[in-house]
Amino acid sequence: MPDVQNESPRAAEPAFLAACNRRAPNRLPVWFMRQAGRSLPEYRALRDGVTMLDSCARPEMVVEITMQPVRRHRVDAAVLYSDIVVPLKAIGVDLDIVPGTGPVIADPVRSAREVARLRPLSVDDVPYVDAACRELVVQLGATPLIGFAGAPFTLASYLVEGGPSRDHARTKALMHDDTQLWHDLLGRLAAITGAFLRVQIDAGARAVQLFDSWVGTLSAADYAEFVQPHSAAVLAAVADLGVPRIHFGVGTGELLALMGEAGADVVGVDWRVPLSEATRRVGPERALQGNLDPALLRARWPVVEAAVRKVVREGQTAPGHVFNLGHGVPPDTDPDVLTRIVELVHSLTPRAG
Amino acid sequence: MPDVQNESPRAAEPAFLAACNRRAPNRLPVWFMRQAGRSLPEYRALRDGVTMLDSCARPEMVVEITMQPVRRHRVDAAVLYSDIVVPLKAIGVDLDIVPGTGPVIADPVRSAREVARLRPLSVDDVPYVDAACRELVVQLGATPLIGFAGAPFTLASYLVEGGPSRDHARTKALMHDDTQLWHDLLGRLAAITGAFLRVQIDAGARAVQLFDSWVGTLSAADYAEFVQPHSAAVLAAVADLGVPRIHFGVGTGELLALMGEAGADVVGVDWRVPLSEATRRVGPERALQGNLDPALLRARWPVVEAAVRKVVREGQTAPGHVFNLGHGVPPDTDPDVLTRIVELVHSLTPRAG
Repeated sequence: MPDVQNESPRAAEPAFLAACNRRAPNRLPVWFMRQAGRSLPEYRALRDGVTMLDSCARPEMVVEITMQPVRRHRVDAAVLYSDIVVPLKAIGVDLDIVPGTGPVIADPVRSAREVARLRPLSVDDVPYVDAACRELVVQLGATPLIGFAGAPFTLASYLVEGGPSRDHARTKALMHDDTQLWHDLLGRLAAITGAFLRVQIDAGARAVQLFDSWVGTLSAADYAEFVQPHSAAVLAAVADLGVPRIHFGVGTGELLALMGEAGADVVGVDWRVPLSEATRRVGPERALQGNLDPALLRARWPVVEAAVRKVVREGQTAPGHVFNLGHGVPPDTDPDVLTRIVELVHSLTPRAG
Repeated sequence: MPDVQNESPRAAEPAFLAACNRRAPNRLPVWFMRQAGRSLPEYRALRDGVTMLDSCARPEMVVEITMQPVRRHRVDAAVLYSDIVVPLKAIGVDLDIVPGTGPVIADPVRSAREVARLRPLSVDDVPYVDAACRELVVQLGATPLIGFAGAPFTLASYLVEGGPSRDHARTKALMHDDTQLWHDLLGRLAAITGAFLRVQIDAGARAVQLFDSWVGTLSAADYAEFVQPHSAAVLAAVADLGVPRIHFGVGTGELLALMGEAGADVVGVDWRVPLSEATRRVGPERALQGNLDPALLRARWPVVEAAVRKVVREGQTAPGHVFNLGHGVPPDTDPDVLTRIVELVHSLTPRAG
């Protein structure tokens, strides 16, 4: 088992958790969304011949894939290898993840009958997640494990559209046409998601990230009315467990304040909004996570380095900063670039003042 | 020939142009991006068996398709039926528009050799556009024709990626890795685009819209350094012709001020930013265009009506407002909904005060 415990013996609180909690970390913490995945040759080798959903349901595979980027890059946190549709599959939704397409739902959810089928989730529905987390915290030592779930809006979009969508038109039409059904749907998804995060924290996750991948398609008014109460319910469902809650979506410049107010301790920011401006929008009570443009990972190293330094500089305006990309690691990323970014970020730790 | 001249005989300036010029229009003007297209059965019938690029190169077809939504919806402006890759094809770039995919470039442009091949455009390269515009202004009478072109960044993205892209990673890498080549590429595209718009105005277009479809993928800093000077060059290239210049992109909340400062008379806004907030960002010197969420076109009429009224109300904060969607008409739109929106918008014309 490798030593992934990089903290100094005097530092009781890992850097990642300190930054989330707006305390000065002993080094600037960094992890990457989708760090466990296709950018790593060791991941591709392990996944060979195993479907995405199967791999998420095998605890030993989840553990190994989750550990791979921690060993390789020496990031400050692990993130559970999973997929946002895992809890839906676990409560019996007939779905598949089609390579090159994404989640495909056999019977899209568009009426009260289908919504009523979305039953609550318990730990018995996801024993493999529970088992994987318990083994991971042993292997990770002081490196925190981040639990992971898709937010109600993004899950609803997949269920209503039947799969990925460019414009989320059916989802938005349902939201506006049948408000009661919409709130019933999102209420059920919030309960499922809250329970799913709770399973992970109970099994040792020391933080959670609620991903609302597609919520940036909404105006702030629609978000506030139709989505925020349900994301808030998810975040409230784990509030008593005392772990930092990160909340992230893409293209959410107009929503950052509202996403923070939903109850996040850390707001994830994509690359479109400088962290200094995000600090202004989110306020002093929450840390920020982000936000290097993942498309820059293909550029020459001096370009990457300058961009990393800029993000670190802008992040110093926030009351806490966890370095990350502004979205997930692209599959064709050279993993050595990520390792080099981790080293650079650590070297740029602001001095306590 | 139908009478598409809806202006009162006393109104010298069509409502669309008045709003663009920040003068009080005699009615609130409305048109729809991609109004000429797949949402109309008469369009689908006409296009049957004709490829997209072929249809754009046949003046009689361009005229008919451009006229269809004007006749049907009685919108306040026509927009030339074309595609953003038409000028590239016209100067010899080997490309095709693949149904279901979009533009595909045979030899992606990634080196000085390929950039050097992007020669200037003259009216002799696009005689069908010249002819179509000349016939259209005859048929349209007082209804203005809007000329149309893709902006340098979006054209560059297609050329560099070789087709549509989710993350524009190759484009961004080139931009940062080889700044000189990037500026050479965008400079050439700006010259082509400026000339292409000039052809349309010379042939009778009374306004132009510069579409930067994908520019919302950039941070404001990257936009200001790598894109704005070239979009500004396009808009400056037709400044002496005195027609309103509309500039639009999707997901551009962080860029609205900069896009206005590039030299637009009208800034197009997607549905994510309320027009009242867009007015604050863009300032008092430019009109706004937008911004009904096109996904709402699938909702029940009372939902659509409430949303239209909200856009009209928020648009009253702008120094001029052209009603439109926040992006193009989705292909599966019921055209009757669009007609009804036109009637509603016209009925909501603010009283001169």
